[in-house]
Amino acid sequence: MIEISPLSALNSAVMAGDHSQPREMSQADIATNAVRRLAEAVVRMSADHPRVSTMAERVNILADELDSRAPSASVRVETMWDPAGGVPKHSPVAGTRNAVARPLVLHQLADGVVEGRVNFGVLHQGPPGCLHGGIAALVLDVALASANAHAGYPGMTASLRIRYLRPTPLYRELTVVAAHIDRDGRKVRSWAEIRLDGEVCVRADGLFVTAREGFAHSDL
Amino acid sequence: MIEISPLSALNSAVMAGDHSQPREMSQADIATNAVRRLAEAVVRMSADHPRVSTMAERVNILADELDSRAPSASVRVETMWDPAGGVPKHSPVAGTRNAVARPLVLHQLADGVVEGRVNFGVLHQGPPGCLHGGIAALVLDVALASANAHAGYPGMTASLRIRYLRPTPLYRELTVVAAHIDRDGRKVRSWAEIRLDGEVCVRADGLFVTAREGFAHSDL
Repeated sequence: MIEISPLSALNSAVMAGDHSQPREMSQADIATNAVRRLAEAVVRMSADHPRVSTMAERVNILADELDSRAPSASVRVETMWDPAGGVPKHSPVAGTRNAVARPLVLHQLADGVVEGRVNFGVLHQGPPGCLHGGIAALVLDVALASANAHAGYPGMTASLRIRYLRPTPLYRELTVVAAHIDRDGRKVRSWAEIRLDGEVCVRADGLFVTAREGFAHSDL
Repeated sequence: MIEISPLSALNSAVMAGDHSQPREMSQADIATNAVRRLAEAVVRMSADHPRVSTMAERVNILADELDSRAPSASVRVETMWDPAGGVPKHSPVAGTRNAVARPLVLHQLADGVVEGRVNFGVLHQGPPGCLHGGIAALVLDVALASANAHAGYPGMTASLRIRYLRPTPLYRELTVVAAHIDRDGRKVRSWAEIRLDGEVCVRADGLFVTAREGFAHSDL
């Protein structure tokens, strides 16, 4: 059986952070959270919902209003990224401004060790009632990058090895842990896990490369 | 430089499929596409947008309306999944009802060979102007699963190896190709690539396991 909690309650818990630190949400973060709620409501609704056509119209009107005043995507692509290794607001895992993200908040426990807690719902489903394996890979990639950045070696993913040890349920509090292992020149190694009640569901081992001027992955 | 196309045009192209086959969109699919537009508009908007508070209120009202009539998440978790290996509507990569998905449409070229084309925008960004490495892993996991299913061996991911060969740009038409390799008992192997203009950006090699009664990943 799958334990289901109302998304609004989940979001409140997730947004509050895993150490009960109240995070100050901007109006833009609140609007993003509303879009998250809407995305989940739309995936859950019956296809014959009587208001589906008018709903689509209303959402398109809102999108038009925002589009007409928003900076171009090219500007946002540049300005939302934090080259210092902080959490970019647009991150599809950790971004408070990205409705695709839950978002996951990773706390630094020690140099190169990070931890966070997160719940996933039907928007991130693979097998029935379980987290999508690709979403697990996405989350672990972010955790690896965060651990490396906190160890002082921010960089980009060169390769990942992901092992699925047991199904990861939706609507449960999962713990994400990651740790930097070592560095050899520009090559940086780290591991990350998604755990449920202390048991490892998915494990990742990552090889990252630190950035250099004019770097391209093809240089590896 | 990053080539930017308007999202609405991109979505039209994506929704039309990669072989210019017009796909019939249900009203619910149209509503989902509207939520996709809204999610991108929200991530692009300036934090001091004058309408951000009222926008959040209006989106929350819409979500409340849908929530009050939607089947419970537990019902949707069960009913949206297609055990026959078809594309589940809730898929975070291919689902027409999931605003997280672009969505990617994979066409079967031969038994166990699939191909699709997709564009990603700022919602799926990692490094500036580039696809998030974890999103690439997510897409490739889905492509591997699809190739296996089309070869007659639907199953779940046991392990993935992902290699990042060159940066994958946003706002460009990417080709996703995957092929089943072989099977040994319940173990199924396949490969998948994300390509730009014929060059491989990201490569995945997957080990999957076919399902059996009472299967759990921990049995591996």
